Order: sequence, then C-alpha cells, then structure tokens
Amino acid sequence: MAENKIPYKIYLTEDEMPRQWYNLRADMSNKPAPLLNPGTLQPMTAAELETVFCAELVQQELDNDTPYFDIPQEIRDFYKMYRPAPLVRAYCLEEKLQTPAKIYYKFEGNNTSGSHKLNSAIAQAYYAKAQGLKGVTTETGAGQWGTALSMACGYLGLDCQVFMVKCSYEQKPFRREVMRVYGASVTPSPSEITQVGRKILAEFPGTTGSLGCAISEAVEVAVNTPGYRYVLGSVLNQVLLHQSIIGLEAKLALDKYGVKPDIIIGCAGGGSNLGGLIAPFMGEKLRGEADYRFIAVEPASCPTLTRGEYRYDFCDTGMVCPLAKMYTLGSCFMPSADHAGGLRFHGMSSILSQLYADGYMEAQSVRQTEVFQAAEEFARVEGILPAPESSHAILVAINEAKKCQETGEEKNILFGLTGTGYFDLVAYEKFHNGEMSNYIPSDAEIAAALASLPKVD
Amino acid sequence: MAENKIPYKIYLTEDEMPRQWYNLRADMSNKPAPLLNPGTLQPMTAAELETVFCAELVQQELDNDTPYFDIPQEIRDFYKMYRPAPLVRAYCLEEKLQTPAKIYYKFEGNNTSGSHKLNSAIAQAYYAKAQGLKGVTTETGAGQWGTALSMACGYLGLDCQVFMVKCSYEQKPFRREVMRVYGASVTPSPSEITQVGRKILAEFPGTTGSLGCAISEAVEVAVNTPGYRYVLGSVLNQVLLHQSIIGLEAKLALDKYGVKPDIIIGCAGGGSNLGGLIAPFMGEKLRGEADYRFIAVEPASCPTLTRGEYRYDFCDTGMVCPLAKMYTLGSCFMPSADHAGGLRFHGMSSILSQLYADGYMEAQSVRQTEVFQAAEEFARVEGILPAPESSHAILVAINEAKKCQETGEEKNILFGLTGTGYFDLVAYEKFHNGEMSNYIPSDAEIAAALASLPKVD
Repeated sequence: MAENKIPYKIYLTEDEMPRQWYNLRADMSNKPAPLLNPGTLQPMTAAELETVFCAELVQQELDNDTPYFDIPQEIRDFYKMYRPAPLVRAYCLEEKLQTPAKIYYKFEGNNTSGSHKLNSAIAQAYYAKAQGLKGVTTETGAGQWGTALSMACGYLGLDCQVFMVKCSYEQKPFRREVMRVYGASVTPSPSEITQVGRKILAEFPGTTGSLGCAISEAVEVAVNTPGYRYVLGSVLNQVLLHQSIIGLEAKLALDKYGVKPDIIIGCAGGGSNLGGLIAPFMGEKLRGEADYRFIAVEPASCPTLTRGEYRYDFCDTGMVCPLAKMYTLGSCFMPSADHAGGLRFHGMSSILSQLYADGYMEAQSVRQTEVFQAAEEFARVEGILPAPESSHAILVAINEAKKCQETGEEKNILFGLTGTGYFDLVAYEKFHNGEMSNYIPSDAEIAAALASLPKVD
Repeated sequence: MAENKIPYKIYLTEDEMPRQWYNLRADMSNKPAPLLNPGTLQPMTAAELETVFCAELVQQELDNDTPYFDIPQEIRDFYKMYRPAPLVRAYCLEEKLQTPAKIYYKFEGNNTSGSHKLNSAIAQAYYAKAQGLKGVTTETGAGQWGTALSMACGYLGLDCQVFMVKCSYEQKPFRREVMRVYGASVTPSPSEITQVGRKILAEFPGTTGSLGCAISEAVEVAVNTPGYRYVLGSVLNQVLLHQSIIGLEAKLALDKYGVKPDIIIGCAGGGSNLGGLIAPFMGEKLRGEADYRFIAVEPASCPTLTRGEYRYDFCDTGMVCPLAKMYTLGSCFMPSADHAGGLRFHGMSSILSQLYADGYMEAQSVRQTEVFQAAEEFARVEGILPAPESSHAILVAINEAKKCQETGEEKNILFGLTGTGYFDLVAYEKFHNGEMSNYIPSDAEIAAALASLPKVD
C-alpha cells in the first residue's frame, strides 16, 4: 500500500518550494468588498493607500484578478532559512485516539518567531526596503507577528517599531526581549506616545489593550514619520496572498502521496493562517474542480464569524484606518484580558468573510480550557508544544477524528499548526493551576459594540 | 559546480536515518578509564551499576568494544517526530562575514526540549520502561535535559522527577512549566528533601546550586525508591553513544554532497553534544582514514579542559556517585551563578578526556559577553535564536571563518548548534542591559577545589 510509505514528516526540497504566491481572489466570483476611506466612505484609491502602505503592497492589496504573483528571489532565499515547512502525519495522535482518520498538520513553528507570521513579515519588509524606506511600524498581539517583523527587519537592516497589546506585553515578558535581539523597539499599547493612545487611555483607564487599538497607534506613527510605512500581520488581502505559501506547500506535499484532504481546519483571528492554508484548496472548490470541507475555529471569547455581523467596520479601535467589509464584533469590542494570546481581533479578513457569507466555509467557536486540554494531549504524543492559537485547530481536529472513530470513516483531516507555545507558558501555568477562565461575551455586550458602528451598507 | 547545488538545509529522509548508534570507544586504542566504586576504589561492576542505572544501559556503559548498537524500532519511531535534524549551510553568515570559508551547522533545536538532549532521553526512558520500572530521577542545569526527559517519559507513561539547579530554576521559570506540561515534577536543588541536599545547604547556605549537587540528590532518591533508577544527560559513555546520531547524520549529509569538514567545533559541558557530533569523524581519525581538527569550546567561567586536571574525581558534589577519570575542576567547584545556562559541570566525559589527553582534540575557553555577541550576530543573519551553550561554538566558528578571510583559505567548518535560546531570555536581557559578567575563576579557587579530592591514581 502506498499508505505505508507516508513518512512522519513530508519535507519538500528547496527546489520544490513554490515560486509564486496564489491570489485566491482571482477565483472568487463574489470579490471581497473594497476598503473604504473613513472620511468619504468611497473605495480607497491606490494613492490614498500609499500614504499608509508601500506602493507594491498596495498593488497586491487591490488586485482581485491576477491569480499568481512571483515571489522575488530575495524573499525565496530568506524563506530557505526556515522553509519548506514540514507536513506532518500525526501517527502518534491517531494511535492515541484510536481513530481510523488520517491526521495531517502543516507545522509552521520551526522558526524563531515561532509561527507562520514570518511568511508575510519578510515580504512586507522586503517591499519597504525596495521602496527605499527607513522603517516600518506595526502592532502585535500574542507577539508572534512582532517577532517575525523584527527578524525580517533585522535581516534587511530596516528600523522596526512595534506596539504590543498591553496584556500580552505583560503576559509575555520574553517576547519583547526576542524582538530586542533583532533590534526592534517595543511599546506597550495603549501608550502615552500617540494621540489615539492617550485618547483610549482617557476613555478606558486601566484597559489592557486590544489589537484594534495597537493598530491605531502604529498607523498614527507611520503616517507622521517621514520614510516610514505601516505593516499589518493579518486581515489584509496582501497578507493572505503571502500566506498562501502554507497551503501551496501543504497541497504539493499531499499530492506527492496522492492524499486528498476531506476536512481542512485552521484557527482564525484575523485570518492570516486560515486564509493561507486553505487558499489552493478553496481555489479548486471555487473552480468546481474538487470539494473540501473547511472549518474556521475561533475562541468563544472573541466569536467573530459565529456571533458577529457581516458589515463595514473599522479595522482599528481609534477609527483612523480604512473600513473593511467583514464579520465583526464591532471595532470597540474589547476581548477579555483572560483570553490567552492571539485570535483577539474584532474582525475577520474580507476574503474569508465573503467566502463564509457565500457558504464555502464553516465556523466553530471553542472554549479556552478545552483548547488547553487538547494542547496538552497533543504535546504529550506529538512532542510539539503548540501555541494556544494553533490549539484551537487541534481541538477541532481531535473532535473530528473522534467522530471518525464512531462512524469508522477513514477521513483525511488536515489542520494548520501555526506555531509553538514557548512564550505562552504563563497561560499553560494558569491552566495547570485551574485558574483559566472561560469568559464568553454576552449578547448585550456584542450588540452594544455593534450599535456604535457607522452605517455604510 | 557541485557547490551550487548544496541547499540551505540538507534533510536526510527518514529512511536514511541511522539505524545504529556508533560506539567511539571501539576505535580508541587507549580506552577511557573505568568508573570506580567510591567505597572500594575498584572498577564498578555491572551488578553495582545496576543499583543506579537500568541493566541495558549498564551494558552500553561498560562495552568498550562493540562498534555499533542497533537503535530499537520504538526509539527510531520517536526520533521520527523530530529527526532527521537538518544540516544547515550558513550562507547568510558567510556573506555577513565575507569569508571564503564554508560554514555548516547541525541544528538540533527543532524540538520542544530545544536541544539535542532528547536523543538520549528517549533512549534512557525506553530502556527503563522495557525493564518494567515505574519512573526515573535526574538533574537538570539549563533545563534542556529535564525537558527532554519529561517529554520522553510523558510519551512512554513513566514517572519523571527532576532536580533543577537552583539558579536555573530561578532564571528560567518557564522551563518547569514545560516539564509540567509533560507531567514531570521539578524540585530546585539543593533541596531539603534529600539528605545530601540538606548537608550541602548547611555547608553552603545561600548556594545557587550546581549540576554536581543536583546529581547527588537525584541519585539518592533513585536508589531509595523501589522501581526507580537514575538517568543522566551527559558525561556517561552511554549518553555519547546515543548522541552519536548527531555526528552520523551530519556525516551522511556532508557525504551526500562530497564535503569533508576541515574543522569540527562543539560546545562542551559534560560532553554530550561534542562527543556525539565528532563521533564518526573521530572514528575515522583514530583508524587513520582521515584527519580532522576538533575544537571543544568551554566557558572561561568553568574551564574544565583548559584549566582542569586529568584525574579521578566524583561526578557529583555529594560524593555518592562513582568516580570517573576525567578533566575536572574538582567536584566541589561551584561555577559562578552569573554564568548563563549550561556548560556548568566541573568535569568532562571520560571518552573526551582521554581523547584530549592523547592529543586528538583541541580546547578553547571563551568569555560570556563575547559568546552573546556572537549569538546575536548569528541570530540576525541566520534567523535562529541560539542557546547560550551553542553560542560558544558559534563564536569559535566565526573566529575560524574570520581567519579564513585573512588567509583566503576555503575551509569547511562544521559546528554543532545544539539548541535554541527561547528559555534564555533573562540572560539575553542582561546582555542587552550591559549587566552580564565575565567572571573567571582564579588559579587559587581551582587549586583549592582540586586539593580536596581523594588521591586515586
């Protein structure tokens, strides 16, 4: 049987590594809605976007038609430092679960940033450098994106200023030290050094911050500092484009062994991992060439797809950024500080939102303690200590594998293991000590956050 | 040119992974001296050793003649979760240094324990399980060995009790949490729960501990608890046997591309990494088939090979363990608490000591701040955040590559990158803040520690 020949880890060779990113929008008949200018409520033009983002990235952001973009040689060389990333057959987990399902995961944690974020960080830093910029600003939640951007900027010699969501800054003291190794400066957000930060602090004293608020601060600094632009680790179309390398590699590796996944599962905060992982598979589904079941997994504490509304909203709390049409809990929604790590964004990539609205994808929300139980079960048999974010996908993969045990179906399950949990041990400690909360926002809380939004559509 | 075909990372396939460990002792004409019974000062018999160690491991410990040992299938399956480990061509570092040298490193950090220690941990846990034991005890310094053993025991369902050197326990609060994920119990050493711990605390109040002292405690618990044995992550012959997989894989990968290393560099604490990395190359040298230059790199704060004496000494501070003939600073030598992480052991593997005494190997000691400078330089160009231990080897590799820049020689330099520094960020922080010490023990300090030793040879 060919089955027996599948190794524990499928590594592509460097030559097999994709030379182009795949732009899922090209195959969507309902394109994602355009970003709107917050002043005029008209679609943002390239010229307007270029005050915030690099020119080349603006082209990528606006292009809904070109199916493939060449990956520049310099980025491919950087990718070779940590890619191709392995596709792992979870033999040990399957045995532990006694399931007939075949479980695969694409592991993106084998780099110092500890996650898939580096795939887009190097791309965005590269285009900033190519444009002759001095530096970039950004926000980071769990710290993975900030670390990734620091690494990319350190490598290219760009200045890097990171606004880190305050609760993560405090929960993950070592993250800022890693960023410092790579030469970045890190500020807890909300801070006193921006206008929007001071405003949020005045309105919500003692707030532990949110991604939306850190974004506002980073954008403010970028547009007010000559030679700087803002970069973002998720949500944007360009980010999903860069992250398509996850799915492209996973598909190549599966194709090598003639394996077709039945279910593809990814955790979803802003959508960078999920959008990248599913891209080429979703392309086939959109073109009618194949069918797959896609499951987005989000935390019950920040249930964007499962309990949010599909409408225009700001990407940031300060309401200085363009509006995006997306599933959202409201840009002033503040996720519980008790929730560990990432996946705390109030909105969701416009691409994924449109696909979800059109019925191409499912979504589930899961509770935090269940997520950590799954994480620990996974760690003990598969060795890897997973990031809390990734563990959302692990939990649903385990649940699906258990269903196969009941039905006897030999389904192929693919999930994205976005990163490692080495910097999440405060959260693991809480879990071990029984101090982890399962906070879920009330309907009234979500309704109040949504009620304050501007009416656009 | 074949040169151009060498990828950034050479991954062997799982089929190419070695099926046997290589026992370097078989090719040594001067065998390492036997362990001595601390009471009789006679060579330890198998029966005596079996009160402390598993039976199968005792056989491996005593066998100076069998060149190859089969790796059991169960261990090979576990290895497949994180091996084969990549051999990396450091193209980016070479470019940064503008050196004609070709630099390669064998990267052993791509697993949750963060180092090569897992290679021996799973082997030792496997044999303990096979013998029907309930659990094992051990010591850990930097925490890598303890994490590795926790992972192996968690996987096999064995109980795991770890004594962690107090200064590391305090410097690396998250290490114990990782061990807890895998189900281990962790006690800072010296502790009040053993006789030897209480004695050391009475004699040196406020001591931050040492590996030698943690060993004493772990051995005491093992021999006094039915169904338990003691396991050790370095120094012993059996450990170097298991770690030979590092060198075997490195050599296979280099052979594939027809590359012969001129210089092979490894950091050396107790010798587990260095002994494993050089094993098959040293074998060729001993058999007269090839010549290589080997460099052991140790911290100037614990300069075992460069300033110690070659003589019999206890492996532990409590003097309850067998005596080993080795380069030693004296079993009561207490390395400076300011020194970051591992490489704090007062002695050195008997195998490596004998090879060093016979002139087959060089040794250098390096200062802590230089090590962290090299670590940061490496991280910024190669991406990986190295462990402080590994960075000793990085520093000397960089120094050798710089010499090639002066002479124009195109030497092939191979070094062992034993692990990642994700749990060493307190040390990196000290380095960034200019608070890192370069403490070097005085001659008088070393002489005093050596003077207290029993006369054996």
